[in-house]
Amino acid sequence: MIIDKLISKIKELEAPIVVGLDPRLGQIPGHHTGPLFEEKGKTPEAAAMAIFLFNKAIIDSVWDIVPAVKPQIAMYEQFGPAGLACYFQTVAYAKSRGLIVIGDIKRGDIASTAEAYSDGHLGQTDIAGESTAISQTDFITVNPYMGYDSIEPYLSDCEKYDRGLFILVKTSNPSSADIQDLQTADGRPLYVHVGQLVDKWGRGLIGESGFSSIGAVVGATHPNQGKQLRDMLPNTFFLVPGYGAQGGKAADLSGMLNKDGLGIIVNNSRGITGAYQSEKYKAPDTDFAMAAREAALDMKADLEANL
Amino acid sequence: MIIDKLISKIKELEAPIVVGLDPRLGQIPGHHTGPLFEEKGKTPEAAAMAIFLFNKAIIDSVWDIVPAVKPQIAMYEQFGPAGLACYFQTVAYAKSRGLIVIGDIKRGDIASTAEAYSDGHLGQTDIAGESTAISQTDFITVNPYMGYDSIEPYLSDCEKYDRGLFILVKTSNPSSADIQDLQTADGRPLYVHVGQLVDKWGRGLIGESGFSSIGAVVGATHPNQGKQLRDMLPNTFFLVPGYGAQGGKAADLSGMLNKDGLGIIVNNSRGITGAYQSEKYKAPDTDFAMAAREAALDMKADLEANL
Repeated sequence: MIIDKLISKIKELEAPIVVGLDPRLGQIPGHHTGPLFEEKGKTPEAAAMAIFLFNKAIIDSVWDIVPAVKPQIAMYEQFGPAGLACYFQTVAYAKSRGLIVIGDIKRGDIASTAEAYSDGHLGQTDIAGESTAISQTDFITVNPYMGYDSIEPYLSDCEKYDRGLFILVKTSNPSSADIQDLQTADGRPLYVHVGQLVDKWGRGLIGESGFSSIGAVVGATHPNQGKQLRDMLPNTFFLVPGYGAQGGKAADLSGMLNKDGLGIIVNNSRGITGAYQSEKYKAPDTDFAMAAREAALDMKADLEANL
Repeated sequence: MIIDKLISKIKELEAPIVVGLDPRLGQIPGHHTGPLFEEKGKTPEAAAMAIFLFNKAIIDSVWDIVPAVKPQIAMYEQFGPAGLACYFQTVAYAKSRGLIVIGDIKRGDIASTAEAYSDGHLGQTDIAGESTAISQTDFITVNPYMGYDSIEPYLSDCEKYDRGLFILVKTSNPSSADIQDLQTADGRPLYVHVGQLVDKWGRGLIGESGFSSIGAVVGATHPNQGKQLRDMLPNTFFLVPGYGAQGGKAADLSGMLNKDGLGIIVNNSRGITGAYQSEKYKAPDTDFAMAAREAALDMKADLEANL
C-alpha cells in the first residue's frame, strides 16, 4: 500500500521530509529566467518553462536523500494552462526519479465533482470509453468541509489505484483557529471531530505499517494539538506543514510521533528550494540546487537531533 | 460594485438563475464529439474542444435570458492542461457575451497560496514586473475551513478589481451535515458560525443594493437552514446550488429571500445543459441549445410561480 511505501522510504533514508515545490519567480535564478523571457517575452509560457527547469534541477539534486516532493498547484495555476502543464510535468518528472509525489491541491466538492477531480489527479479520465492518465499523484490533499460524500470518490480511487489522501484537520496558518478550533457541544474543538472522521474514513486502507493511506494535515505550528491528535489517531499518518518559514521547530514535532518514532512527514518548501538566497547558505545563483541539497541534509540532521 | 451589477441583471431579466457549465462528455451530442475524436483521437485536446463548442452554443442560446453562468472547474481540470485552457476560454467567451461569470473553484489555502489563486482567478499574475490577466472571473467560490487569513487575499483583490466571492456555508450535498451541522458549545450548528464570519468578512464590500460582494453558498436542499441564514445575514447574497437534479424545489427557496424578493441566485447545470436528453424535452441532438433555452425559460417560470 502507498502509505507503507512512503514509510519504508522514510526509514531507508532516515528522512521524514517532503520538499515543497512552490516556486516563486523571484526565487528562480536569472540564468534560468532571463533567456526564456528574452525568447518568449514575460509570458505564462516562459514562466512555466523556467519553473519546470528549476523544479527539475531541485528534484535531480534531492531525489536520493528525501522520499517525496509536494508541488503546490496554486503556484502553477496562477499562470493558467501553461502553468498547469508545468505542474503535471513536474509530477511526472518527480515520479520518473522514483519520488513519491503529494499533490497539494486541497480540493473539496460534491460527489460528482469529486469524481472528476479524482479521475484527473489520482485515477484515470474516461474519454468516450478510453481511459487516459492525466496526473496520477501518489497522494493529494483534500478539504473535508463538505463531509463524507465529498471524500468517498477519492477513497474508491485510492483503493483501486493504490493512492492516498491527506485530509485537512488542523492547518498551520494562524487563522486555522477561526473554524477548526470552535468548541463543539461536547467540549472538544472541531478539529478533533474532523480527525475522528479521517480515522473512520481511512479504516479500509490501513497498510502493514499500521498506518492508513488516508492521512491528515496537521501543522507544525500546533505542537499540543498535534500530540492530542496523535494520541487519538494511532493509525493516521500526518503531513506536517509549517516547519521553517512558518515558524514550526523540530522539537515541536516529537509529540506527533508514535513509540516507534513514526507518524509524520514534514514539509519544507522555501527553506530548501530558496536556500541559496538565505543568509545561512548565500550560495551563488548557479549553485541553487546544491544549496537545496545542503538545506535538506541540514533539515534531516535537525530532525534527527530533536526528535 | 459587482454584486449590484449581478442584482440589477437579475431584476432586469426577472431571472435569479445561473446556468452551470459542468459538461460531461456523455452529454455532448455526437455531431460535436465525433469529428473531433476522428481527427484528434480520444484525447484530452479533442474532449476539450468538444466541450468548448458545446459551452459556446449553450452560452449563445441563453446569454440574453439569464444573468450569469458558472463553470465548474473540476469538469475541465480532469482533462489536464487542455481542459483548463477550455475552462479559461469558456470564462472569456461568456464575459464577451456580457454574462457575469462565477468560477466554481472552491479553493482554500494559506495566505501566500491564496494570493496565487486570487491572482490567477480574480486579479492579475505578475511575471517579472509585468501583469498578466489569466482568468478574471467576476466571482469565485472558496472554502472557509482554513479561516480568515486564507480568505483575506481574495478580499483585497475583490476590492481592487471589483470582484466577489461565494464562500461555502451550508452546501447542498447530503453529507454536508457531517461537519457543517456539528453543534457548537453555544448550541448552534457550525454553519451558523461560518455564516457570521462571511457576514463579518464582507462588511467592507457592501454595495448600493445593500448586499455584499462577499456572498455565501447555501444549498436549495436545506430550506429551513436557508431561512435561518437569511434572517441572520441580511447583507449576504446566496449562491444556491441543488435545484433540480439534486432535489431542491422552487418553493423551498422562498425563505432565502428578503422582503424585496431578492437575495439568491439559483444554479441549474444538467437540468439546462442536458435538457435535450430528458424525458420532458427529448429534443433531437442538433437542438440541444434550443432545449437549454427552453429549460431556462421554464425554470424562470417555475421560480416566478413559486417564489
